[in-house]
Amino acid sequence: MSRIAYVNGRYVPHAKAAVHIEDRGYQFADGVYEVCEVMDGVLIDETRHLARLARSLSELRIRPPMPDSALKVVLRETVRRNRVRDGIVYLQVTRGVSRRDHYFPPESVAPSIVVTARSADRAKANKAAEAGVAVITLPENRWPRVDIKSVALLPNVLAKQQAKDAGAKEAWYVDADGYVTEGGSTNAWIVTGEGVIVTRSAESGILRGVTRTTLFDMARDLQMRIEERAFTVEEASAASEAFISAATALVTPVISIDGRPVGDGAPGPVASGLRRRFHEFAERAAP
Amino acid sequence: MSRIAYVNGRYVPHAKAAVHIEDRGYQFADGVYEVCEVMDGVLIDETRHLARLARSLSELRIRPPMPDSALKVVLRETVRRNRVRDGIVYLQVTRGVSRRDHYFPPESVAPSIVVTARSADRAKANKAAEAGVAVITLPENRWPRVDIKSVALLPNVLAKQQAKDAGAKEAWYVDADGYVTEGGSTNAWIVTGEGVIVTRSAESGILRGVTRTTLFDMARDLQMRIEERAFTVEEASAASEAFISAATALVTPVISIDGRPVGDGAPGPVASGLRRRFHEFAERAAP
Repeated sequence: MSRIAYVNGRYVPHAKAAVHIEDRGYQFADGVYEVCEVMDGVLIDETRHLARLARSLSELRIRPPMPDSALKVVLRETVRRNRVRDGIVYLQVTRGVSRRDHYFPPESVAPSIVVTARSADRAKANKAAEAGVAVITLPENRWPRVDIKSVALLPNVLAKQQAKDAGAKEAWYVDADGYVTEGGSTNAWIVTGEGVIVTRSAESGILRGVTRTTLFDMARDLQMRIEERAFTVEEASAASEAFISAATALVTPVISIDGRPVGDGAPGPVASGLRRRFHEFAERAAP
Repeated sequence: MSRIAYVNGRYVPHAKAAVHIEDRGYQFADGVYEVCEVMDGVLIDETRHLARLARSLSELRIRPPMPDSALKVVLRETVRRNRVRDGIVYLQVTRGVSRRDHYFPPESVAPSIVVTARSADRAKANKAAEAGVAVITLPENRWPRVDIKSVALLPNVLAKQQAKDAGAKEAWYVDADGYVTEGGSTNAWIVTGEGVIVTRSAESGILRGVTRTTLFDMARDLQMRIEERAFTVEEASAASEAFISAATALVTPVISIDGRPVGDGAPGPVASGLRRRFHEFAERAAP
Protein backbone atom coordinates (compact mmCIF):
# COMPACT_ATOMS: atom_id res chain seq x y z
CA MET A 1 0.00 0.00 0.00
CA SER A 2 1.34 3.44 -0.83
CA ARG A 3 1.59 5.77 2.10
CA ILE A 4 -0.16 9.12 2.49
CA ALA A 5 1.13 12.18 4.31
CA TYR A 6 -0.66 15.30 5.46
CA VAL A 7 1.27 18.42 4.45
CA ASN A 8 -0.07 21.91 5.06
CA GLY A 9 -3.71 21.20 4.41
CA ARG A 10 -3.50 18.40 1.87
CA TYR A 11 -3.24 14.63 1.92
CA VAL A 12 -0.55 13.69 -0.59
CA PRO A 13 1.27 10.53 -1.63
CA HIS A 14 4.13 10.07 0.83
CA ALA A 15 6.68 9.71 -1.96
CA LYS A 16 5.79 13.19 -3.21
CA ALA A 17 5.27 14.83 0.16
CA ALA A 18 7.50 17.89 0.25
CA VAL A 19 8.13 21.16 2.02
CA HIS A 20 9.70 24.32 0.66
CA ILE A 21 13.49 24.61 0.85
CA GLU A 22 13.04 27.80 2.86
CA ASP A 23 10.80 26.15 5.43
CA ARG A 24 12.40 27.21 8.70
CA GLY A 25 12.39 23.61 9.82
CA TYR A 26 14.88 22.83 7.05
CA GLN A 27 17.17 25.83 7.40
CA PHE A 28 17.02 26.54 11.14
CA ALA A 29 15.58 23.48 12.94
CA ASP A 30 12.91 25.98 13.93
CA GLY A 31 10.14 23.56 14.78
CA VAL A 32 8.83 20.90 17.12
CA TYR A 33 7.36 17.44 16.86
CA GLU A 34 5.47 14.65 18.60
CA VAL A 35 5.34 10.91 18.07
CA CYS A 36 2.19 9.19 19.27
CA GLU A 37 1.73 5.45 19.51
CA VAL A 38 -1.18 3.85 17.66
CA MET A 39 -2.50 0.60 19.09
CA ASP A 40 -5.44 -1.32 17.72
CA GLY A 41 -6.17 1.75 15.64
CA VAL A 42 -6.44 4.14 18.59
CA LEU A 43 -4.06 6.90 19.66
CA ILE A 44 -2.30 6.33 22.95
CA ASP A 45 -1.93 9.23 25.38
CA GLU A 46 -3.03 11.69 22.71
CA THR A 47 -4.14 14.32 25.25
CA ARG A 48 -0.70 14.48 26.81
CA HIS A 49 1.05 14.59 23.44
CA LEU A 50 -1.10 17.50 22.30
CA ALA A 51 -0.59 19.30 25.61
CA ARG A 52 3.18 18.93 25.26
CA LEU A 53 3.02 20.08 21.64
CA ALA A 54 1.16 23.21 22.76
CA ARG A 55 3.82 23.85 25.39
CA SER A 56 6.71 23.39 22.94
CA LEU A 57 5.07 25.76 20.47
CA SER A 58 4.40 28.31 23.17
CA GLU A 59 8.00 28.21 24.41
CA LEU A 60 9.18 28.95 20.86
CA ARG A 61 6.41 31.47 20.17
CA ILE A 62 5.20 29.46 17.19
CA ARG A 63 1.50 29.82 16.55
CA PRO A 64 -0.50 26.55 16.72
CA PRO A 65 -1.26 25.59 13.12
CA MET A 66 -4.86 24.70 13.96
CA PRO A 67 -7.09 24.06 16.97
CA ASP A 68 -6.57 20.75 18.78
CA SER A 69 -10.00 19.59 17.62
CA ALA A 70 -8.93 19.95 13.97
CA LEU A 71 -5.52 18.45 14.67
CA LYS A 72 -7.17 15.40 16.17
CA VAL A 73 -9.15 14.94 12.97
CA VAL A 74 -5.97 15.17 10.89
CA LEU A 75 -4.15 12.67 13.09
CA ARG A 76 -7.03 10.20 12.80
CA GLU A 77 -7.43 10.71 9.09
CA THR A 78 -3.70 10.18 8.50
CA VAL A 79 -3.81 6.99 10.56
CA ARG A 80 -6.89 5.86 8.68
CA ARG A 81 -5.55 6.61 5.20
CA ASN A 82 -2.39 4.68 5.99
CA ARG A 83 -4.42 1.81 7.47
CA VAL A 84 -2.27 1.85 10.58
CA ARG A 85 -3.57 -0.49 13.23
CA ASP A 86 -0.37 -0.78 15.25
CA GLY A 87 2.33 1.81 14.71
CA ILE A 88 2.92 5.51 15.17
CA VAL A 89 1.63 8.84 14.01
CA TYR A 90 4.29 11.59 13.65
CA LEU A 91 3.50 15.28 13.77
CA GLN A 92 5.85 18.18 13.01
CA VAL A 93 5.14 21.90 13.21
CA THR A 94 7.62 24.57 12.11
CA ARG A 95 7.64 28.35 12.02
CA GLY A 96 6.76 28.23 8.33
CA VAL A 97 8.26 29.34 5.06
CA SER A 98 10.05 32.66 4.81
CA ARG A 99 13.05 34.24 3.12
CA ARG A 100 16.08 33.02 5.08
CA ASP A 101 16.79 35.21 8.11
CA HIS A 102 17.45 34.12 11.69
CA TYR A 103 14.87 36.49 13.14
CA PHE A 104 11.28 35.32 13.34
CA PRO A 105 9.34 36.00 10.12
CA PRO A 106 6.34 38.36 10.11
CA GLU A 107 3.24 37.27 12.00
CA SER A 108 1.50 36.74 8.67
CA VAL A 109 3.69 33.70 7.91
CA ALA A 110 1.69 30.56 8.69
CA PRO A 111 3.34 27.68 10.54
CA SER A 112 3.94 24.50 8.54
CA ILE A 113 2.48 21.18 9.59
CA VAL A 114 3.34 17.68 8.48
CA VAL A 115 1.71 14.47 9.72
CA THR A 116 2.76 10.96 8.80
CA ALA A 117 1.74 7.53 10.06
CA ARG A 118 3.29 4.15 9.68
CA SER A 119 2.77 0.63 10.87
CA ALA A 120 5.07 -1.19 13.24
CA ASP A 121 5.45 -4.87 13.97
CA ARG A 122 4.23 -5.20 17.54
CA ALA A 123 5.26 -8.82 17.92
CA LYS A 124 8.77 -8.03 16.74
CA ALA A 125 9.02 -5.07 19.13
CA ASN A 126 7.85 -7.22 22.03
CA LYS A 127 10.38 -9.86 21.13
CA ALA A 128 13.17 -7.26 21.10
CA ALA A 129 12.01 -5.97 24.48
CA GLU A 130 12.04 -9.51 25.87
CA ALA A 131 15.71 -9.73 24.90
CA GLY A 132 16.53 -6.34 26.41
CA VAL A 133 18.86 -3.70 25.01
CA ALA A 134 22.34 -2.36 25.65
CA VAL A 135 23.06 1.31 26.34
CA ILE A 136 26.26 3.33 26.35
CA THR A 137 26.88 6.55 28.26
CA LEU A 138 28.12 9.87 26.87
CA PRO A 139 28.76 13.31 28.33
CA GLU A 140 25.68 15.53 28.04
CA ASN A 141 26.30 17.95 25.19
CA ARG A 142 22.88 19.27 24.29
CA TRP A 143 21.57 22.74 24.97
CA PRO A 144 19.66 23.25 28.24
CA ARG A 145 16.27 23.62 26.52
CA VAL A 146 15.74 19.89 26.04
CA ASP A 147 12.37 20.45 27.72
CA ILE A 148 11.26 21.71 24.28
CA LYS A 149 10.68 18.82 21.88
CA SER A 150 12.40 20.56 18.98
CA VAL A 151 13.64 19.09 15.71
CA ALA A 152 17.16 20.37 16.48
CA LEU A 153 18.10 16.71 16.96
CA LEU A 154 21.60 16.61 15.49
CA PRO A 155 23.25 15.93 18.88
CA ASN A 156 20.76 13.11 19.50
CA VAL A 157 21.42 11.66 16.04
CA LEU A 158 25.16 11.56 16.72
CA ALA A 159 24.69 10.07 20.18
CA LYS A 160 22.37 7.34 18.93
CA GLN A 161 24.66 6.51 16.02
CA GLN A 162 27.57 6.27 18.46
CA ALA A 163 25.48 3.80 20.44
CA LYS A 164 24.73 1.81 17.32
CA ASP A 165 28.42 1.78 16.35
CA ALA A 166 29.12 0.32 19.80
CA GLY A 167 26.49 -2.39 19.33
CA ALA A 168 24.01 -0.66 21.64
CA LYS A 169 20.48 0.62 21.16
CA GLU A 170 20.55 3.85 23.12
CA ALA A 171 22.98 6.43 24.50
CA TRP A 172 22.44 7.83 27.98
CA TYR A 173 23.66 11.36 28.52
CA VAL A 174 25.55 12.02 31.75
CA ASP A 175 25.63 15.55 33.15
CA ALA A 176 28.68 17.38 34.54
CA ASP A 177 27.92 16.04 38.03
CA GLY A 178 27.92 12.42 36.88
CA TYR A 179 24.15 11.98 36.82
CA VAL A 180 22.26 10.40 33.96
CA THR A 181 19.90 12.85 32.27
CA GLU A 182 18.11 10.80 29.60
CA GLY A 183 18.66 8.84 26.42
CA GLY A 184 18.97 10.17 22.89
CA SER A 185 15.26 9.52 22.32
CA THR A 186 14.03 7.93 25.56
CA ASN A 187 13.83 8.58 29.30
CA ALA A 188 16.11 6.58 31.61
CA TRP A 189 15.03 4.55 34.65
CA ILE A 190 16.45 2.14 37.21
CA VAL A 191 14.98 -0.17 39.81
CA THR A 192 16.95 -0.33 43.07
CA GLY A 193 17.72 -3.44 45.08
CA GLU A 194 14.81 -2.45 47.33
CA GLY A 195 12.47 -2.40 44.34
CA VAL A 196 12.18 1.37 44.14
CA ILE A 197 11.65 2.76 40.63
CA VAL A 198 13.88 5.80 40.08
CA THR A 199 13.91 8.37 37.30
CA ARG A 200 15.22 11.91 37.03
CA SER A 201 13.00 14.85 37.84
CA ALA A 202 11.75 16.63 34.74
CA GLU A 203 12.63 19.98 36.33
CA SER A 204 15.97 20.05 34.51
CA GLY A 205 18.02 18.22 31.95
CA ILE A 206 15.31 16.13 30.31
CA LEU A 207 12.18 16.20 28.24
CA ARG A 208 9.05 15.45 30.23
CA GLY A 209 8.25 12.18 28.49
CA VAL A 210 4.58 11.41 27.95
CA THR A 211 5.20 7.70 28.51
CA ARG A 212 7.23 8.68 31.59
CA THR A 213 4.25 10.59 32.99
CA THR A 214 1.90 7.70 32.33
CA LEU A 215 4.35 5.33 34.03
CA PHE A 216 4.25 7.57 37.10
CA ASP A 217 0.48 7.30 37.24
CA MET A 218 0.71 3.59 36.71
CA ALA A 219 3.32 3.02 39.43
CA ARG A 220 1.30 5.05 41.90
CA ASP A 221 -1.85 3.19 40.97
CA LEU A 222 -0.12 -0.13 41.48
CA GLN A 223 1.31 1.16 44.77
CA MET A 224 4.85 0.66 43.57
CA ARG A 225 7.53 2.75 45.24
CA ILE A 226 8.78 5.48 42.93
CA GLU A 227 11.39 8.20 43.42
CA GLU A 228 11.93 11.20 41.18
CA ARG A 229 15.65 11.91 41.51
CA ALA A 230 18.86 11.77 39.52
CA PHE A 231 21.04 8.65 39.58
CA THR A 232 24.65 8.09 38.57
CA VAL A 233 25.99 5.61 36.04
CA GLU A 234 27.50 3.65 38.94
CA GLU A 235 24.15 3.41 40.69
CA ALA A 236 22.53 2.31 37.45
CA SER A 237 25.16 -0.34 36.85
CA ALA A 238 24.64 -1.70 40.37
CA ALA A 239 20.83 -1.54 40.14
CA SER A 240 18.51 -4.54 40.00
CA GLU A 241 17.04 -3.37 36.73
CA ALA A 242 17.21 -0.53 34.27
CA PHE A 243 14.91 0.45 31.45
CA ILE A 244 14.07 3.13 28.92
CA SER A 245 10.70 4.63 28.05
CA ALA A 246 9.20 6.44 25.06
CA ALA A 247 6.04 6.35 22.98
CA THR A 248 7.74 3.99 20.55
CA ALA A 249 9.95 2.02 22.96
CA LEU A 250 7.18 1.89 25.59
CA VAL A 251 9.10 0.23 28.43
CA THR A 252 12.19 -1.55 27.15
CA PRO A 253 14.53 -3.30 29.61
CA VAL A 254 18.20 -2.33 29.61
CA ILE A 255 20.47 -5.32 30.18
CA SER A 256 23.86 -3.63 29.99
CA ILE A 257 25.43 -0.19 30.44
CA ASP A 258 28.78 0.47 28.77
CA GLY A 259 29.21 -3.28 28.42
CA ARG A 260 28.61 -4.05 32.11
CA PRO A 261 25.52 -6.18 32.82
CA VAL A 262 22.69 -4.66 34.83
CA GLY A 263 21.47 -7.06 37.54
CA ASP A 264 21.78 -10.57 36.18
CA GLY A 265 22.07 -9.23 32.63
CA ALA A 266 18.52 -10.15 31.68
CA PRO A 267 15.28 -8.13 31.61
CA GLY A 268 13.86 -7.83 35.11
CA PRO A 269 10.34 -8.40 36.40
CA VAL A 270 9.56 -4.76 37.18
CA ALA A 271 10.35 -3.44 33.69
CA SER A 272 8.74 -6.42 32.01
CA GLY A 273 5.63 -6.02 34.14
CA LEU A 274 5.37 -2.30 33.44
CA ARG A 275 5.64 -2.97 29.73
CA ARG A 276 3.08 -5.75 29.76
CA ARG A 277 0.51 -3.73 31.66
CA PHE A 278 1.30 -0.28 30.24
CA HIS A 279 -1.78 -0.03 28.06
CA GLU A 280 -4.10 -0.76 30.95
CA PHE A 281 -3.11 2.66 32.26
CA ALA A 282 -2.48 4.77 29.16
CA GLU A 283 -5.24 6.91 27.72
CA ARG A 284 -6.83 5.43 24.64
CA ALA A 285 -8.25 8.10 22.41
CA ALA A 286 -11.09 6.99 20.18
CA PRO A 287 -10.09 6.20 16.57
CA MET B 1 12.68 38.35 -11.99
CA SER B 2 11.67 34.98 -10.60
CA ARG B 3 14.34 33.20 -8.63
CA ILE B 4 15.85 29.82 -9.37
CA ALA B 5 17.11 27.25 -6.88
CA TYR B 6 19.29 24.22 -7.37
CA VAL B 7 17.79 21.18 -5.63
CA ASN B 8 19.33 17.72 -5.89
CA GLY B 9 20.48 17.95 -9.48
CA ARG B 10 17.89 20.28 -10.96
CA TYR B 11 17.43 24.00 -11.38
CA VAL B 12 13.85 24.75 -10.38
CA PRO B 13 11.72 27.85 -9.83
CA HIS B 14 12.41 29.02 -6.28
CA ALA B 15 8.71 29.15 -5.45
CA LYS B 16 8.41 25.44 -6.21
CA ALA B 17 11.77 24.36 -4.78
CA ALA B 18 11.06 21.61 -2.29
CA VAL B 19 12.61 18.77 -0.35
CA HIS B 20 10.97 15.61 0.91
CA ILE B 21 9.32 15.75 4.34
CA GLU B 22 11.62 12.93 5.43
CA ASP B 23 14.77 14.74 4.42
CA ARG B 24 16.94 14.44 7.51
CA GLY B 25 17.54 18.15 7.42
CA TYR B 26 13.85 18.70 8.14
CA GLN B 27 13.32 16.04 10.80
CA PHE B 28 16.71 15.98 12.55
CA ALA B 29 18.67 19.15 11.62
CA ASP B 30 21.08 16.59 10.21
CA GLY B 31 22.94 18.83 7.79
CA VAL B 32 25.33 21.71 7.29
CA TYR B 33 25.47 24.92 5.30
CA GLU B 34 27.62 27.75 4.01
CA VAL B 35 26.84 31.31 2.99
CA CYS B 36 29.25 32.89 0.53
CA GLU B 37 29.30 36.55 -0.40
CA VAL B 38 28.95 37.50 -4.07
CA MET B 39 30.50 40.80 -5.10
CA ASP B 40 30.57 42.14 -8.63
CA GLY B 41 29.42 38.68 -9.70
CA VAL B 42 32.36 36.83 -8.13
CA LEU B 43 32.39 34.56 -5.11
CA ILE B 44 34.34 35.88 -2.13
CA ASP B 45 36.56 33.47 -0.16
CA GLU B 46 35.03 30.49 -1.95
CA THR B 47 38.04 28.26 -1.27
CA ARG B 48 37.73 28.72 2.47
CA HIS B 49 33.96 28.21 2.42
CA LEU B 50 34.33 24.94 0.53
CA ALA B 51 37.12 23.80 2.84
CA ARG B 52 34.94 24.47 5.86
CA LEU B 53 32.00 22.70 4.23
CA ALA B 54 34.19 19.65 3.69
CA ARG B 55 35.25 19.74 7.33
CA SER B 56 31.66 20.06 8.61
CA LEU B 57 30.56 17.14 6.44
CA SER B 58 33.49 15.04 7.56
CA GLU B 59 32.79 15.71 11.25
CA LEU B 60 29.22 14.50 10.74
CA ARG B 61 30.23 11.63 8.47
CA ILE B 62 28.04 12.96 5.66
CA ARG B 63 29.33 12.11 2.21
CA PRO B 64 30.11 15.14 0.01
CA PRO B 65 27.27 15.40 -2.51
CA MET B 66 29.68 16.04 -5.41
CA PRO B 67 33.31 16.97 -6.02
CA ASP B 68 34.29 20.57 -5.30
CA SER B 69 34.82 21.16 -9.01
CA ALA B 70 31.20 20.29 -9.74
CA LEU B 71 29.98 22.22 -6.73
CA LYS B 72 31.76 25.32 -7.96
CA VAL B 73 29.92 25.00 -11.26
CA VAL B 74 26.58 24.74 -9.44
CA LEU B 75 27.34 27.76 -7.26
CA ARG B 76 28.25 29.85 -10.31
CA GLU B 77 25.29 28.65 -12.32
CA THR B 78 22.90 29.44 -9.45
CA VAL B 79 24.41 32.91 -9.13
CA ARG B 80 24.17 33.39 -12.89
CA ARG B 81 20.58 32.19 -13.22
CA ASN B 82 19.52 34.54 -10.44
CA ARG B 83 21.50 37.39 -11.99
CA VAL B 84 23.14 38.11 -8.68
CA ARG B 85 25.84 40.72 -8.98
CA ASP B 86 26.00 41.68 -5.30
CA GLY B 87 24.47 39.33 -2.77
CA ILE B 88 24.95 35.86 -1.38
CA VAL B 89 24.91 32.25 -2.47
CA TYR B 90 23.59 29.77 0.12
CA LEU B 91 24.45 26.10 0.13
CA GLN B 92 22.94 23.36 2.31
CA VAL B 93 23.83 19.68 2.44
CA THR B 94 21.94 17.13 4.54
CA ARG B 95 22.24 13.41 5.15
CA GLY B 96 19.47 12.79 2.65
CA VAL B 97 16.00 11.30 2.60
CA SER B 98 15.26 8.19 4.60
CA ARG B 99 12.50 6.66 6.70
CA ARG B 100 12.60 8.50 10.02
CA ASP B 101 15.09 6.94 12.43
CA HIS B 102 17.75 8.69 14.51
CA TYR B 103 20.52 6.35 13.36
CA PHE B 104 22.33 7.17 10.13
CA PRO B 105 20.55 5.75 7.06
CA PRO B 106 22.25 3.12 4.87
CA GLU B 107 25.30 4.21 2.87
CA SER B 108 23.18 3.98 -0.29
CA VAL B 109 21.17 7.06 0.74
CA ALA B 110 22.49 10.06 -1.17
CA PRO B 111 23.00 13.37 0.62
CA SER B 112 20.66 16.20 -0.34
CA ILE B 113 21.94 19.48 -1.68
CA VAL B 114 20.21 22.83 -2.07
CA VAL B 115 21.76 26.00 -3.46
CA THR B 116 20.08 29.40 -3.59
CA ALA B 117 21.32 32.86 -4.46
CA ARG B 118 19.88 36.28 -3.88
CA SER B 119 20.81 39.88 -4.40
CA ALA B 120 21.56 42.30 -1.60
CA ASP B 121 21.62 46.06 -1.56
CA ARG B 122 25.30 46.87 -0.99
CA ALA B 123 24.75 50.60 -0.54
CA LYS B 124 22.09 49.97 2.08
CA ALA B 125 24.32 47.50 3.92
CA ASN B 126 27.19 49.98 3.91
CA LYS B 127 24.90 52.67 5.22
CA ALA B 128 23.76 50.41 8.08
CA ALA B 129 27.38 49.62 8.87
CA GLU B 130 28.21 53.30 8.96
CA ALA B 131 25.56 53.73 11.61
CA GLY B 132 26.81 50.76 13.64
CA VAL B 133 24.73 48.18 15.46
CA ALA B 134 23.72 47.33 19.01
CA VAL B 135 24.35 43.93 20.59
CA ILE B 136 23.00 42.28 23.70
CA THR B 137 24.68 39.52 25.68
CA LEU B 138 23.21 36.17 26.68
CA PRO B 139 24.50 33.11 28.51
CA GLU B 140 25.99 30.59 26.09
CA ASN B 141 23.47 27.78 25.72
CA ARG B 142 24.50 25.97 22.55
CA TRP B 143 26.07 22.55 22.35
CA PRO B 144 29.89 22.42 22.29
CA ARG B 145 30.12 21.43 18.62
CA VAL B 146 29.56 24.94 17.30
CA ASP B 147 32.73 24.34 15.25
CA ILE B 148 30.42 22.40 12.91
CA LYS B 149 28.34 24.75 10.76
CA SER B 150 25.16 22.73 11.20
CA VAL B 151 21.57 23.73 10.49
CA ALA B 152 20.65 22.96 14.12
CA LEU B 153 20.23 26.71 14.53
CA LEU B 154 17.23 26.93 16.85
CA PRO B 155 19.30 28.35 19.76
CA ASN B 156 20.75 30.97 17.41
CA VAL B 157 17.29 31.86 16.11
CA LEU B 158 16.03 32.45 19.65
CA ALA B 159 19.12 34.47 20.59
CA LYS B 160 18.89 36.70 17.54
CA GLN B 161 15.16 37.21 18.02
CA GLN B 162 15.84 38.18 21.65
CA ALA B 163 18.33 40.73 20.33
CA LYS B 164 15.77 42.07 17.89
CA ASP B 165 13.13 42.29 20.62
CA ALA B 166 15.62 44.40 22.59
CA GLY B 167 16.22 46.70 19.62
CA ALA B 168 19.62 45.16 18.87
CA LYS B 169 21.05 43.46 15.80
CA GLU B 170 23.05 40.65 17.32
CA ALA B 171 23.31 38.60 20.52
CA TRP B 172 26.73 37.78 21.92
CA TYR B 173 26.97 34.54 23.85
CA VAL B 174 28.91 34.65 27.11
CA ASP B 175 30.45 31.43 28.44
CA ALA B 176 30.35 30.19 32.04
CA ASP B 177 33.61 32.03 32.80
CA GLY B 178 32.25 35.37 31.64
CA TYR B 179 33.99 35.42 28.27
CA VAL B 180 32.27 36.28 25.02
CA THR B 181 32.21 33.35 22.60
CA GLU B 182 30.57 34.71 19.46
CA GLY B 183 27.34 36.12 18.09
CA GLY B 184 24.26 34.25 16.93
CA SER B 185 25.52 34.41 13.35
CA THR B 186 28.78 36.41 13.54
CA ASN B 187 32.18 36.39 15.23
CA ALA B 188 32.85 38.98 17.94
CA TRP B 189 35.80 41.38 18.08
CA ILE B 190 37.06 44.32 20.09
CA VAL B 191 39.80 46.91 19.64
CA THR B 192 41.63 47.83 22.85
CA GLY B 193 42.69 51.31 23.90
CA GLU B 194 46.15 50.43 22.60
CA GLY B 195 44.72 49.63 19.19
CA VAL B 196 45.08 45.88 19.51
CA ILE B 197 42.46 43.84 17.64
CA VAL B 198 41.18 40.99 19.83
CA THR B 199 39.03 37.99 19.00
CA ARG B 200 38.52 34.63 20.62
CA SER B 201 40.60 31.64 19.59
CA ALA B 202 38.73 29.23 17.35
CA GLU B 203 40.01 26.32 19.42
CA SER B 204 36.82 26.27 21.49
CA GLY B 205 33.40 27.84 21.75
CA ILE B 206 33.10 29.32 18.28
CA LEU B 207 32.84 28.59 14.60
CA ARG B 208 36.03 29.35 12.70
CA GLY B 209 34.57 32.16 10.62
CA VAL B 210 35.82 32.46 7.06
CA THR B 211 35.61 36.24 7.22
CA ARG B 212 37.38 36.03 10.59
CA THR B 213 40.25 34.09 9.00
CA THR B 214 40.55 36.57 6.15
CA LEU B 215 40.56 39.43 8.67
CA PHE B 216 43.50 37.76 10.40
CA ASP B 217 45.44 37.66 7.15
CA MET B 218 44.50 41.23 6.47
CA ALA B 219 45.51 42.54 9.90
CA ARG B 220 48.87 40.78 9.65
CA ASP B 221 49.40 42.12 6.16
CA LEU B 222 48.65 45.63 7.33
CA GLN B 223 50.93 45.08 10.34
CA MET B 224 48.09 45.73 12.74
CA ARG B 225 48.44 44.24 16.22
CA ILE B 226 46.13 41.29 16.70
CA GLU B 227 45.55 38.97 19.66
CA GLU B 228 43.66 35.70 19.58
CA ARG B 229 42.20 35.44 23.08
CA ALA B 230 38.90 35.56 24.92
CA PHE B 231 37.55 38.83 26.30
CA THR B 232 34.86 39.59 28.85
CA VAL B 233 31.75 41.71 28.40
CA GLU B 234 33.33 44.26 30.74
CA GLU B 235 36.45 44.47 28.60
CA ALA B 236 34.32 44.83 25.49
CA SER B 237 32.26 47.61 27.04
CA ALA B 238 35.42 49.47 28.01
CA ALA B 239 37.09 48.89 24.61
CA SER B 240 37.79 51.57 22.03
CA GLU B 241 35.80 49.71 19.43
CA ALA B 242 33.88 46.52 18.92
CA PHE B 243 32.66 44.83 15.77
CA ILE B 244 31.16 41.69 14.31
CA SER B 245 32.21 39.73 11.24
CA ALA B 246 30.55 37.29 8.85
CA ALA B 247 30.30 36.70 5.13
CA THR B 248 27.10 38.75 5.05
CA ALA B 249 27.90 41.32 7.75
CA LEU B 250 31.53 41.63 6.56
CA VAL B 251 32.86 43.94 9.28
CA THR B 252 30.07 45.77 11.06
CA PRO B 253 30.88 48.14 13.92
CA VAL B 254 29.18 47.57 17.28
CA ILE B 255 28.26 50.83 18.98
CA SER B 256 26.61 49.48 22.14
CA ILE B 257 26.59 46.36 24.28
CA ASP B 258 23.57 45.76 26.52
CA GLY B 259 22.68 49.41 26.08
CA ARG B 260 26.09 50.76 27.16
CA PRO B 261 27.98 52.64 24.45
CA VAL B 262 31.27 51.22 23.20
CA GLY B 263 33.97 53.91 23.00
CA ASP B 264 32.26 57.14 22.02
CA GLY B 265 29.19 55.26 20.84
CA ALA B 266 30.01 55.61 17.16
CA PRO B 267 31.74 53.30 14.67
CA GLY B 268 35.50 53.48 15.15
CA PRO B 269 38.28 53.90 12.59
CA VAL B 270 39.70 50.38 12.92
CA ALA B 271 36.44 48.57 12.20
CA SER B 272 35.47 51.04 9.49
CA GLY B 273 38.86 50.69 7.87
CA LEU B 274 38.77 46.91 7.97
CA ARG B 275 35.36 46.95 6.34
CA ARG B 276 36.35 49.40 3.65
CA ARG B 277 39.48 47.52 2.66
CA PHE B 278 38.21 43.95 3.27
CA HIS B 279 37.85 43.01 -0.37
CA GLU B 280 41.42 43.99 -1.16
CA PHE B 281 42.42 41.00 0.92
CA ALA B 282 39.65 38.45 0.38
CA GLU B 283 39.97 35.83 -2.33
CA ARG B 284 37.92 36.59 -5.41
CA ALA B 285 36.95 33.44 -7.23
CA ALA B 286 36.30 33.83 -10.92
CA PRO B 287 32.61 34.11 -11.89
